[in-house]
Amino acid sequence: MSKYVYFFGSGKAEGKGSMKDLLGGKGANLAEMTNIELPVPPGFTITTEVCKLYYKNNKKHPTGLEKQVEDNIKKLEKATGKKFGDPSNPMFVSVRSGAKFSMPGMMDTILNIGLNDQSVEGLVNKTKNERMGFDSYRRIVNMLGDVVMGIPHEKFEHVMSELKRERNVKVDTDLSAEALKELVRRYKALFKKETGRDFPQDPREQLWLAINAVFLSWNSKRAITYRKLNHIPDDLGTAVNVQTMVFGNFGNDSGTGVGFTRNPSTGKKEYYGEYLINAQGEDVVAGIRTPKHISELNKDLPHAYRELVKIYQKLEAHYKDMQDFEFTIERGKLYMLQTRAGKRTAYAAVRIAVEMVKEKLIDKKTAVLRIDPHQLDQLLHKQINVKAKLDVIAKGLPASPGAAVGKAVFTADEAERMADEEGEKVILVRNETSPEDIHGMNAAEGILTARGGMTSHAAVVARGMGKPCVAGCEKLHISEQRKELTVGPHTVKEGDILALNGSTGEVILGEVELIEPEMAAEFKTLMEWADGMRKLSVRTNADTPNDAKIARDFGAEGIGLCRTEHMFFEADRIKAVREMILADDEPGRRRALAKILPFQKKDFIGIFKAMKDLPVTIRLLDPPLHEFLPYDDQQISELALEMGVPEEKLKARVKSLHELNPMLGFRGCRLGVVYPEISEMQVKAIMEAACECTKEKMKVYPEIMIPLVGHVNEIKMMRELCVNTADGVIKETGVKVKYKVGTMIEVPRAAVTADEIAEYAEFFSFGTNDLTQMTYGFSRDDIGKFIPEYIAKKVMDVDPFQTLDTSGVGQLIEMAVKKGRSVRKDLKVGICGEHGGDPKSVEFCHFAGLTYVSCSPFRVPIARLAAAHANLKSQKVSQGVSKDK
Amino acid sequence: MSKYVYFFGSGKAEGKGSMKDLLGGKGANLAEMTNIELPVPPGFTITTEVCKLYYKNNKKHPTGLEKQVEDNIKKLEKATGKKFGDPSNPMFVSVRSGAKFSMPGMMDTILNIGLNDQSVEGLVNKTKNERMGFDSYRRIVNMLGDVVMGIPHEKFEHVMSELKRERNVKVDTDLSAEALKELVRRYKALFKKETGRDFPQDPREQLWLAINAVFLSWNSKRAITYRKLNHIPDDLGTAVNVQTMVFGNFGNDSGTGVGFTRNPSTGKKEYYGEYLINAQGEDVVAGIRTPKHISELNKDLPHAYRELVKIYQKLEAHYKDMQDFEFTIERGKLYMLQTRAGKRTAYAAVRIAVEMVKEKLIDKKTAVLRIDPHQLDQLLHKQINVKAKLDVIAKGLPASPGAAVGKAVFTADEAERMADEEGEKVILVRNETSPEDIHGMNAAEGILTARGGMTSHAAVVARGMGKPCVAGCEKLHISEQRKELTVGPHTVKEGDILALNGSTGEVILGEVELIEPEMAAEFKTLMEWADGMRKLSVRTNADTPNDAKIARDFGAEGIGLCRTEHMFFEADRIKAVREMILADDEPGRRRALAKILPFQKKDFIGIFKAMKDLPVTIRLLDPPLHEFLPYDDQQISELALEMGVPEEKLKARVKSLHELNPMLGFRGCRLGVVYPEISEMQVKAIMEAACECTKEKMKVYPEIMIPLVGHVNEIKMMRELCVNTADGVIKETGVKVKYKVGTMIEVPRAAVTADEIAEYAEFFSFGTNDLTQMTYGFSRDDIGKFIPEYIAKKVMDVDPFQTLDTSGVGQLIEMAVKKGRSVRKDLKVGICGEHGGDPKSVEFCHFAGLTYVSCSPFRVPIARLAAAHANLKSQKVSQGVSKDK
Repeated sequence: MSKYVYFFGSGKAEGKGSMKDLLGGKGANLAEMTNIELPVPPGFTITTEVCKLYYKNNKKHPTGLEKQVEDNIKKLEKATGKKFGDPSNPMFVSVRSGAKFSMPGMMDTILNIGLNDQSVEGLVNKTKNERMGFDSYRRIVNMLGDVVMGIPHEKFEHVMSELKRERNVKVDTDLSAEALKELVRRYKALFKKETGRDFPQDPREQLWLAINAVFLSWNSKRAITYRKLNHIPDDLGTAVNVQTMVFGNFGNDSGTGVGFTRNPSTGKKEYYGEYLINAQGEDVVAGIRTPKHISELNKDLPHAYRELVKIYQKLEAHYKDMQDFEFTIERGKLYMLQTRAGKRTAYAAVRIAVEMVKEKLIDKKTAVLRIDPHQLDQLLHKQINVKAKLDVIAKGLPASPGAAVGKAVFTADEAERMADEEGEKVILVRNETSPEDIHGMNAAEGILTARGGMTSHAAVVARGMGKPCVAGCEKLHISEQRKELTVGPHTVKEGDILALNGSTGEVILGEVELIEPEMAAEFKTLMEWADGMRKLSVRTNADTPNDAKIARDFGAEGIGLCRTEHMFFEADRIKAVREMILADDEPGRRRALAKILPFQKKDFIGIFKAMKDLPVTIRLLDPPLHEFLPYDDQQISELALEMGVPEEKLKARVKSLHELNPMLGFRGCRLGVVYPEISEMQVKAIMEAACECTKEKMKVYPEIMIPLVGHVNEIKMMRELCVNTADGVIKETGVKVKYKVGTMIEVPRAAVTADEIAEYAEFFSFGTNDLTQMTYGFSRDDIGKFIPEYIAKKVMDVDPFQTLDTSGVGQLIEMAVKKGRSVRKDLKVGICGEHGGDPKSVEFCHFAGLTYVSCSPFRVPIARLAAAHANLKSQKVSQGVSKDK
Repeated sequence: MSKYVYFFGSGKAEGKGSMKDLLGGKGANLAEMTNIELPVPPGFTITTEVCKLYYKNNKKHPTGLEKQVEDNIKKLEKATGKKFGDPSNPMFVSVRSGAKFSMPGMMDTILNIGLNDQSVEGLVNKTKNERMGFDSYRRIVNMLGDVVMGIPHEKFEHVMSELKRERNVKVDTDLSAEALKELVRRYKALFKKETGRDFPQDPREQLWLAINAVFLSWNSKRAITYRKLNHIPDDLGTAVNVQTMVFGNFGNDSGTGVGFTRNPSTGKKEYYGEYLINAQGEDVVAGIRTPKHISELNKDLPHAYRELVKIYQKLEAHYKDMQDFEFTIERGKLYMLQTRAGKRTAYAAVRIAVEMVKEKLIDKKTAVLRIDPHQLDQLLHKQINVKAKLDVIAKGLPASPGAAVGKAVFTADEAERMADEEGEKVILVRNETSPEDIHGMNAAEGILTARGGMTSHAAVVARGMGKPCVAGCEKLHISEQRKELTVGPHTVKEGDILALNGSTGEVILGEVELIEPEMAAEFKTLMEWADGMRKLSVRTNADTPNDAKIARDFGAEGIGLCRTEHMFFEADRIKAVREMILADDEPGRRRALAKILPFQKKDFIGIFKAMKDLPVTIRLLDPPLHEFLPYDDQQISELALEMGVPEEKLKARVKSLHELNPMLGFRGCRLGVVYPEISEMQVKAIMEAACECTKEKMKVYPEIMIPLVGHVNEIKMMRELCVNTADGVIKETGVKVKYKVGTMIEVPRAAVTADEIAEYAEFFSFGTNDLTQMTYGFSRDDIGKFIPEYIAKKVMDVDPFQTLDTSGVGQLIEMAVKKGRSVRKDLKVGICGEHGGDPKSVEFCHFAGLTYVSCSPFRVPIARLAAAHANLKSQKVSQGVSKDK
């Protein structure tokens, strides 16, 4: 006959940790804990096989199951020295479901099985606590009635409310023992009324009702839906765990607590934990009594404490990781209820991983894999103290991570004034930011906008500056004039304190405590290990020498994307830029461009110096020209006056440049094809800067990048322009500089025709923001109206602008890499979209064979670690990339 | 020794028509004409081989060439009975280049070789025309000096101007014989001054100079550029044609003319042509003297006429097509100078093709292939009489073909009023049209807009109505208030006459003559033949019963795209649509939708009736909702009043619906995913209509099409919605209707993941407008700023919205077809973008294995013919599609 039931207890289990298929996750874990001789309350697991047979046989148990269960109950009684349902020395059990994968939607737990009119007296006698006995009793009547027999939960609630009203008490815990006795009576009456039968007094009947309820919950509607959404097969079945109950509230020789094998906040190797004497697990969580530090247990219950100390060591020796655990002490005897890898701060995670290597508990690879790259954000930015109570008044997009607190200001000028003159910390609040707000953003601690997405001006600039930003917080009504914002019932005026959590998008009213980021020596060690384990290079997206420096300090190995448009906005040249746009003909444009040239050259010299010896990829002008002109009538008037051009002319130009879909408009290399003189000026500035730096004995590796190429003839023409101009500069200066010309791949057509394009491009850089926009056909600025709904309805798992859409956009990337390298074997291929700093996307890039990823400075460490993870994984997988479904 | 020179003349040529590689196009043609015993002036062709050897051997002639040329000159002298350079009976020759492919950029022609100080006298004696003799002489001095010796052309011009000034004459032809003699003298002096040598008097030297000039012109910069741009290999080489000259101006027994073997306007089988007595070819072209009809030649020169009549028959018998030709009669003897397939009107083309089949000259396939599908437009729309002189004042996009004349009006109301009340023909002129202009468009003869592209509202609606439309004519300044438009110096006021050519985009001031379209019986015959030769089905894009009827008359085999958004704009329901958009919640939306349902149902009943027995693909609502609301403040105020909602609320809703890139916004199936109730109403209306029609014993085949799908979960969810709703209607009505659910493929991601999507789609329809926009990353509405420049700079050959980009977008289509059919073998695949009516794109669709193409009603015949062409071609090619480079 098949073995349907696996016993665990008395230091030995029939199952083991690897038997998750048969015993479910929880059952396997309990067996494992038992086998390493942790004092686990004994119990047994009914296998998933039984569940499958149950459904196969029209909801009947397989022959022999009853007998095996009965045998195991006997074993339990032997192990505990108690008797199931015994009036004087009763044994109680819990029944829990436990599938291979943790599954909300299934039955959770039924406690106190074995309680009936007789055994409740035994419990009261033993605990000398009548209240506790009857409270336990009413709970099992409720649970069996509700979960098993399907009596609506509200009906029990109603009986309870009625009683509380009669006894004039507010909360359940104020009910006296006598009242609870009455409650049990009424619950049992309800049970009878609803089911037509008495509450079962036979413990074995209670047990079987609970076991069957677990089986039935496998096919509950919620469970089926959950499996469907999460692609879990329907035929796995669930196991059932039956475990004897222990009570921490049997008196002052009992207690309950939780522990960590190391300090989860700091990572320090010390015994860490809390406990309460004469209490149940939920009391610790409820926070009504203040728990004591674990070290005090040595005084309260020295025997249990000594045993606990041994367990701390045993846990780490066995699980090779910091563990948390729950324990209960019943009458001086310690029981372990659960253990698992402990949650920890990023700081602790790094310290623990590095120290465990030193302790020879784990190897370096394991240490590196232990750190979730996402966590590193905590180490790089200020954080809000999670213990603080927050008054969250709105939620926007988490556009740039970290936290900030300061006084709300509504104009860039005021932000600068308050910060500079009054030394105030300020939060700049705007409907949206524009290049004219840069000085205010620079002065502010954080930026909050009502409009714009994750790639809006505010978001991009803030990320570059490493400042927290919450963008596109659409519920805000901001009045610059009245200097206030309103959201729901709240009004925030200039000077009121606001806090932002740029990692979550939360906008918080009032002062909150911030925690400074810490970068310990362990962090450096761990990152060095990671660097030795990755194949992908990591570059940064940086437009200024300052950004470049920060990124370099974070380990960037070059610049993968230096945008030049922000340079055009700088105060000292925007006028010339506008002259260029307003010029009537090419000579006019060239005159204006000649004024911009020296500035551009200076920009590039600064960047080359900051990135000495490392490659710098510079993208030629990308945005549509209208972005450099004002939109509204008043600003146009002012500018016309300032520039000395007729207002009508300026208006006409603004109108003629207007686009219905600017994302799909006159931008990128289209500018260079139509106005080659703009690109010529930029290439000249790049190469003159490079030659000058080379003269000063620096090594520079400029890489000129053509944006938005979709057709081979575009790159062909632009390449010719670049080479002619660059070689001209080299000839003129007599300084030899090696440069490359390459292209962004951000238009689907470029990916599809990458073989043609690679003939003229020495490198590809995937601009995955645009590529995602065009592959999906939705603009990042406009998805706010439907993507949240898409995620809620599970049409998509994640926002594809945060994590690369590997099954769609990814296919185009893989195609482009393959086609590109078919023509040019040594083609350098990188990614410079926002995804370059997202761990899952970095993993994809590794598997797709990219040369490097490029991301904003503050994400460089994340990318380095993610790249190491990917490579370690690929050593395990060694075949294709797993695709999203 | 190799044969370098091929003789033709005296009824026999050494070469033949198929030897284009060796003799070039012109040489092979002359050989062919000679072989069929046309009286071609004798000559010889130096092969392309010689050109290749010339370059191979460092610009030296291969050994033996001189001798072969000399032998052939002897043959010529024998054939003509004249002598090269002879003072009394001189023979003259022309030298022309002639590569395999016609190639501008190479040397064209040097005439009159053999003219020198002696032979000019012989020419004068024979012609008794001193003026003619010296005019010929000065021309060869000029040509040899300029083309061969590289003397700047202006210098000759300058000498000529000088002389004209001295002689006080205005035009060259007013120069007397004496003056021309003086001109020859001065030209020769210039020749000597510039080259340091005398003008060569030796005819043979002249000849060799000209031959070498032809060889050198093969590698001229212009020729190289031309070859590069047109992908012609550089190593083909050119042939040189040396041909004896004949003169139509030797007196009244001489003449020159052109002819067609059938009437090129009507296609009627009759001798057609014109001639001038005592004239040269250029005189016929110049139009100074009025040529006579060919039939009169019977009186003037009956012998030559009789010969010509024989030639008419011989040409068609040999070339199996209507031919045009040039002839010269020298002293009563007829010479044929050139013949080629004659240009003809569409009407003539169809008649000739059909009649030639009846005459057993050609087979039906050939007849079908003879008609260029593009030409059919002429047969379906009014045309401007090409003989009319037009005052073209502007040019816009050729948005809907055909021509119209009428009084300019600037509002839809006025258009309707003038047309209905005054019976005037009007042209509606608007900055752009909106659904509120439909009644005016309906009343107008044609539509002119200043803004919007080929898929603007005006363009789409006009094509649907079969009315001419010129759209996006950006140079127009239209003032609705002042009721006028200005463009450059012109002002057009209300009531002024305007004409539009929707096939070219021309806007014409004043009255022009229109030619009515003619649909002859021959057209029907030809189209029936074509239908038997095609594999692709042809459907139509039609939104109304009227469109559907027109398309059906034109041979549409179903509807491939019925847009439902235009229905939403109809006056009787736009209010309910707006209520729906403004509703605060789902119940509110459902209430409004319930009002729209009966209208939608009526719409579909009308369409099903018009398309009885044929499939009808209905696309669910596609555009963003803000398109149904007004934009400007005043209109918002009015609407708020009308609808009884607070103005602020309406404004807020308009603002919240605003999108930065509407093309990439909240539209297509995204609407259905977020607001399923909209799609449910539409599906209900479709199915209720289908059931009602079925009850009335009609066969209906509704195909429900989901727009803008990019992710499999979108089609999965929408399919479920459609099936649930449709099956609900079927159950309720008890009427069985077979329906299909499919999807547009218009987002690159849909093409890339077509295998996933095909699991839930019974058909694909490529929306190539959107697919092109997203694959290239440019919006059709915004390309005006750079695509013209792209085409001018040869970055692109054609606007990819007019002809499908086969190498980029095409790859995605092929991928989608392959992936889709890998999952669903019987997947129906069509195209419903504008390309469905473009012949080259239809060809691509055939080769890509599509099931059908769908186009606007008036393009259905074009698509039918193009589909036949594609299939006939594929029978020849029988392998993959040739890709654009």
